[in-house]
Amino acid sequence: MAKTEQATENAQLKDIISHAKEYGFVYPSSEIYDGLQAVYDYGAYGVELKNNLKRLWWESMTRLNDNIVGIDASIFMHPTTWKASGHVDSFNDPMIDNKDSKKRYRADVLIEDKAAELEKAGKEQEAKSLLAAMGRLLEAEDLEGVRDLIVNENITCPVSGTANWTDVRQFNLMFATQVGSVAEDASTIYLRPETAQGIFVNFLNVQKTARMKVPFGIAQIGKAFRNEIVARQFIFRMREFEQMEMQYFVRPGTELDWYKNWSETRLKWHKALGVPDEKLRTHDHDKLAHYANAAMDIEFDFPFGFKEVEGIHSRTDFDLKSHQEYSKKKQQYFDPEVNQNYIPYVIETSIGADRLFLMTLCNAFTEEEQEGKKRTYLKFHPAIAPVKAAILPLTKKDGLPDKGREIFDKLKFDFNVVYEEAASIGKRYTRQDLIGTPFCIAVDHQTLEDNTVTIRHRDTTEQERVHIDELHGKLAAATSFRNIFNKI
Amino acid sequence: MAKTEQATENAQLKDIISHAKEYGFVYPSSEIYDGLQAVYDYGAYGVELKNNLKRLWWESMTRLNDNIVGIDASIFMHPTTWKASGHVDSFNDPMIDNKDSKKRYRADVLIEDKAAELEKAGKEQEAKSLLAAMGRLLEAEDLEGVRDLIVNENITCPVSGTANWTDVRQFNLMFATQVGSVAEDASTIYLRPETAQGIFVNFLNVQKTARMKVPFGIAQIGKAFRNEIVARQFIFRMREFEQMEMQYFVRPGTELDWYKNWSETRLKWHKALGVPDEKLRTHDHDKLAHYANAAMDIEFDFPFGFKEVEGIHSRTDFDLKSHQEYSKKKQQYFDPEVNQNYIPYVIETSIGADRLFLMTLCNAFTEEEQEGKKRTYLKFHPAIAPVKAAILPLTKKDGLPDKGREIFDKLKFDFNVVYEEAASIGKRYTRQDLIGTPFCIAVDHQTLEDNTVTIRHRDTTEQERVHIDELHGKLAAATSFRNIFNKI
Repeated sequence: MAKTEQATENAQLKDIISHAKEYGFVYPSSEIYDGLQAVYDYGAYGVELKNNLKRLWWESMTRLNDNIVGIDASIFMHPTTWKASGHVDSFNDPMIDNKDSKKRYRADVLIEDKAAELEKAGKEQEAKSLLAAMGRLLEAEDLEGVRDLIVNENITCPVSGTANWTDVRQFNLMFATQVGSVAEDASTIYLRPETAQGIFVNFLNVQKTARMKVPFGIAQIGKAFRNEIVARQFIFRMREFEQMEMQYFVRPGTELDWYKNWSETRLKWHKALGVPDEKLRTHDHDKLAHYANAAMDIEFDFPFGFKEVEGIHSRTDFDLKSHQEYSKKKQQYFDPEVNQNYIPYVIETSIGADRLFLMTLCNAFTEEEQEGKKRTYLKFHPAIAPVKAAILPLTKKDGLPDKGREIFDKLKFDFNVVYEEAASIGKRYTRQDLIGTPFCIAVDHQTLEDNTVTIRHRDTTEQERVHIDELHGKLAAATSFRNIFNKI
Repeated sequence: MAKTEQATENAQLKDIISHAKEYGFVYPSSEIYDGLQAVYDYGAYGVELKNNLKRLWWESMTRLNDNIVGIDASIFMHPTTWKASGHVDSFNDPMIDNKDSKKRYRADVLIEDKAAELEKAGKEQEAKSLLAAMGRLLEAEDLEGVRDLIVNENITCPVSGTANWTDVRQFNLMFATQVGSVAEDASTIYLRPETAQGIFVNFLNVQKTARMKVPFGIAQIGKAFRNEIVARQFIFRMREFEQMEMQYFVRPGTELDWYKNWSETRLKWHKALGVPDEKLRTHDHDKLAHYANAAMDIEFDFPFGFKEVEGIHSRTDFDLKSHQEYSKKKQQYFDPEVNQNYIPYVIETSIGADRLFLMTLCNAFTEEEQEGKKRTYLKFHPAIAPVKAAILPLTKKDGLPDKGREIFDKLKFDFNVVYEEAASIGKRYTRQDLIGTPFCIAVDHQTLEDNTVTIRHRDTTEQERVHIDELHGKLAAATSFRNIFNKI
């Protein structure tokens, strides 16, 4: 990518971040105390957008599929869960400190930055072999080798400028805390680093109590926590984040068919949400995690490049088998169709709610020239827009506010609508554009005569005259999740 | 309460707990690892019920009141937040250890248990003065005095039977964790012990970006964490729990009117949900927290007695003032109506989502004798029932399943419905009773002729014949939140 192009894109992210702050979508956490790194809060419109996205995902899973049910497992789990999942032993980042600046870095990121530098300088072959060497060393867990690589490549600390490095050490990304009183019964537990394990440990509970038959899925939305050292790109990588995961339990041997199926379904879902084809791409993993036999990402073209929004993974029977081993409790399913007991294989679809939010915001953020003036608006799909309609009396007098309130009261139980009477109608339209409201309903003097109002459409700014009695039906049709479901 | 009566009620809680487990409402967390004390997971029907309750509360706040908006602040907050709120210094329980058994106890609970013993023995006056003495000592933070009281009253450890006690020490209930890498920039942060502070630190962000005018409210739903030493009564008191809080910002001097207003509104809300008058009571606090000038609880008659479900508190300007002091950032609002800057006063409504869930479950749990047989069902209000309707073909042949599926597909996008064809119709009715499904729709041979079906009503077991085309409208009318909103 050319340098100027990159500069534009970073400027765009900056614009989106300040728009999100100014119009009540996302604030830095604890901002009055100067914030907390890599943690954010959702504001009045942000929380409505996020809730809509979460509900859309939830219903896409549990309503579109009658063999998928939900759960809500706690963030705290028995610590053995994380032994079984492998997180205690291997959920690590390799860290290195510069002795002069006292700054700590991820060793692999230092090397990747070096490779990027080489590539820019036209030394593509050298960059490639550097990354390959790093890959081999990390694979072999040869941390001394990683340090040697850093030293040999003359990688220096961006702060001190020296190569005076400590050893490379593994740093676990789980947050730990003490539960119980400090006396004899206190024990270390972790904030879950992923929601998936809450599903796995409940596999048999759900299968039995909801009487599910393989293939079936369990969906969950919830917070997860990772002590990321390099947290950046706004809400893309946070220390506290929300996952939406669905684990689909299948008969062994059928998993790759289901993997293909879910990969296609999930890609369609993103397109149905209004993301254009050219802003989405899929990426098959070359190197698979130890538990997977197939894996792919759905990537979105963020202002900082194509990055993962969702992952689809064929996790085999790794998790259930490991929980069976650690808990000494059989994690088997009796399949009446083949008259066999087995540990099901699992296809996982895993999406970050915050990343989905950021994708939606970036995709909606639109700046257009119109009659020599810049117009900014958020072109959210009406089904997920935080506010569905604004009811705007043209003036504050002649009974127009009363009429406006009447319409507002008719719609407010079924749609998130707002009523505004201050400022000029143009300013009020602009305000609604900036928070992405698809429909503005203007109440004027004609309304008092014939009970018609003007609907002004956000994306086209076109206006149409409709009868008040049509409003409910029109809003229901435009904002229904069915518009999205029908395309999946 | 007579002893036999108490025994019955504990048995009822036990029945409810096992019903919740067996029918997919609530499981012990990480059960395959023998659970994690005072932490629970919500199953397939539990999560739907809980989500319905959360959404009902959310819409009751943000849709019924056009001056209330939501936010979703993170669990992690800047640690100074908890200095300002008073939690670092005074969110403590007084703990004492028995040196022989090595067991740790809450000192106040030991004394309360002793008082209960005295009361049972008819020594009511002694019990009263013991509690009064404890109150005075805790108020004065005289921990030595508390220890003396325990020793003088001959309170012994239930395990060792001795009075060989350590000193009483304060034990902070917040969970702490380390954020950042372990190098120079690591710092201790806390898991929030309440969601309220996430609202207070965002007061100005929300007021400005959503352009709110006093009086206005900010609503939030989210997890909070307390390292409770004595956690018991199922999901009533958990270490990880979910709060639904609304902070209402008002002009100083008007707060007690708003306090009265919200107290009444919230009580009506519980009644609208189907809780009978005699199972609800209010309790005004005699002793107010340092930040409050009025406070009351709404209590529900749980199997273990009347206990708090929701609290309404007039918090004065304590929180905003304290954040202003600690952050050095003005937390003021300019009120154009009185042409003045001030720190608003705050009325808080605070309800535990898990307690509300437990109340709903206890209130719905019904055991009846019918024709000599016991019938158990959950009589949830249809608006919050996890499953709205079950579509049940009478037999598996003659095309009834196809017809059933057709009905299912027509309803599934708008309602959480299930389709079941296995087992006798009676067994399937029973199954739906046990998870609280208000309507069973039976498809029989007549359906094939005239497109009518039978609706069987859960509470009365009465049946009515309706046309298929009426189903959507009937379900929509019965399950709409409006049924509840209209009563508030």
